Amino acid sequence: MQQLAPVTLASLQERIEPQLEAAYDELCRIVVTDFPLVTDVNSHLLRLKGKMFRPTLLLLSAEAVGGGSKREETLAATVELIHLATLVHDDSVDHSVLRRGQPTVNSAFSHQVAVIMGDYLYSRAILALVSLDDPRPLQVMAMVTNEMTIGEMRELDAFDRLSYDQESYDALIRSKTASLMSGACEVGALAGDGEHREYLKRYGMLLGMAFQVTDDVIDYTESESVTGKPSGLDLREHKVTLPLIAALPNMSASERALVNGLMADPEPSEDVIAAVVDVVSENGGIGAARDRAAGLARDAARELEHVPDGVAKEGLRDCLTYAIERHS
Amino acid sequence: MQQLAPVTLASLQERIEPQLEAAYDELCRIVVTDFPLVTDVNSHLLRLKGKMFRPTLLLLSAEAVGGGSKREETLAATVELIHLATLVHDDSVDHSVLRRGQPTVNSAFSHQVAVIMGDYLYSRAILALVSLDDPRPLQVMAMVTNEMTIGEMRELDAFDRLSYDQESYDALIRSKTASLMSGACEVGALAGDGEHREYLKRYGMLLGMAFQVTDDVIDYTESESVTGKPSGLDLREHKVTLPLIAALPNMSASERALVNGLMADPEPSEDVIAAVVDVVSENGGIGAARDRAAGLARDAARELEHVPDGVAKEGLRDCLTYAIERHS
Repeated sequence: MQQLAPVTLASLQERIEPQLEAAYDELCRIVVTDFPLVTDVNSHLLRLKGKMFRPTLLLLSAEAVGGGSKREETLAATVELIHLATLVHDDSVDHSVLRRGQPTVNSAFSHQVAVIMGDYLYSRAILALVSLDDPRPLQVMAMVTNEMTIGEMRELDAFDRLSYDQESYDALIRSKTASLMSGACEVGALAGDGEHREYLKRYGMLLGMAFQVTDDVIDYTESESVTGKPSGLDLREHKVTLPLIAALPNMSASERALVNGLMADPEPSEDVIAAVVDVVSENGGIGAARDRAAGLARDAARELEHVPDGVAKEGLRDCLTYAIERHS
Repeated sequence: MQQLAPVTLASLQERIEPQLEAAYDELCRIVVTDFPLVTDVNSHLLRLKGKMFRPTLLLLSAEAVGGGSKREETLAATVELIHLATLVHDDSVDHSVLRRGQPTVNSAFSHQVAVIMGDYLYSRAILALVSLDDPRPLQVMAMVTNEMTIGEMRELDAFDRLSYDQESYDALIRSKTASLMSGACEVGALAGDGEHREYLKRYGMLLGMAFQVTDDVIDYTESESVTGKPSGLDLREHKVTLPLIAALPNMSASERALVNGLMADPEPSEDVIAAVVDVVSENGGIGAARDRAAGLARDAARELEHVPDGVAKEGLRDCLTYAIERHS
């Protein structure tokens, strides 16, 4: 885990740049249609080109087990497409206005268009997977997508509940975030002889959990100028995440009362949010969550010990560093 | 097409009752989960057991080509499940409050739950299809689902547009309704040696168009006590369907002005809706739409001529009569 220089996404994607570009082009091809409204939404979505982190995991996993062909580019495209479909529905469910600094589909078009567009993207991904004529990636991706919907349901259930504990939180981040990253690694591993499939699947699950814990820390620690969304957004939306869960047992009665007040207020003020952010930090919530993310990354690195050495494996190790050290 | 007694859904489902029951049981098994909120929504949805018309088409098609086994029951379950998933999203997109006389998921739970639940049901259907280890039904169903999302987009585009013509309407009903019925028949036909696949696919497409045209007629002609939803609902929602498209060219200037007035009014009154219903009827819109449905059913029956004779084929013929003669 020790690094002299910070790992940026750009640096770890450098070695697979051509395949990532090809995967992105493939993604654009998969979503093409001659229906004008869908074309408009496609252009809007493709302008918000994401970090392509899941395709990166898939391509590095494939390379690590000795594979990596045209097929993996299509698989990488479908993983990003499934991610995109869930973002479109998530934003619609959350009534989010901005994503990656651009208007969401629900805000730029309408809530209706967002629901249908998510279905469109997901069914196109399935079609692309079917065309590969291999049931294994299809099965992994169908399982993962179903798991993600359970994660979304867990998230709805998690609002306003200070009794929410770490076990529930772990179940949430596993299904919501880590399952797709795990699926990306597992599908990549299918490029090999199958021997490393379970290791890479577990690596992806642990990496994904570390990634989400870090996301939840960033929500407490980073300003809007860094992340593109207001800090304390989770608290504003009454989402209970690890920093708060970890800090709660250490809080005084008056500090707990402050948190309860925020959770009871449908529109908590900036001042109250900032005060709760401070209380969480002072009671060790941020530190505990960072430690947890680092621990998960170490567990993930241990799974990599079973994977053949090489530059791709180094890339997967860098992904762990990136996952827990990033600021946005 | 001539019938002495009207064909009811119950009468045409009688001969395949055990398989339909098995398909419904399979559907219930496919959606099972241990997550409480999803279990609640499942119970709610399964109480609204639908007409199972698409599974009926699938099972009769399979039997007509000499097939029909445990596998077809699973396929029938997934077709109904995909239908259910689209209903849940449609109701959410349309903000519908009632479906089959019961509260919709978006009204009984929330809009958020409805979006996620649709995704849940659809991904479960894909998982069930993957488990059959045959890429053909999966490919058909993925194509159809994608086509249905395009249909939904067409429907959003069709609002408030009196320039909407029969060609656009046909494209809409093909993708929105007929594609899944066509897919059900095509997947059923896979139980045979493949020789009848294209005929049954086309039969299903024409049947589905006749079914939707009849739905759109029913919206003009039947009262809420018969259909379970208010009559004139399409006009209230500014949906332009075949009765109106067919009547428009025959209308006087003042009658057109009445229609334009309705379309310009965000909340048209009952009186205006009733007046437009009368104008559409007087200008031959209902009759023309009924003729179109009958013509489509005749075309569908012609496709059946290529299918082996037998009770299942008679059942498929009865489905045509049912599709155009029903009142709800």
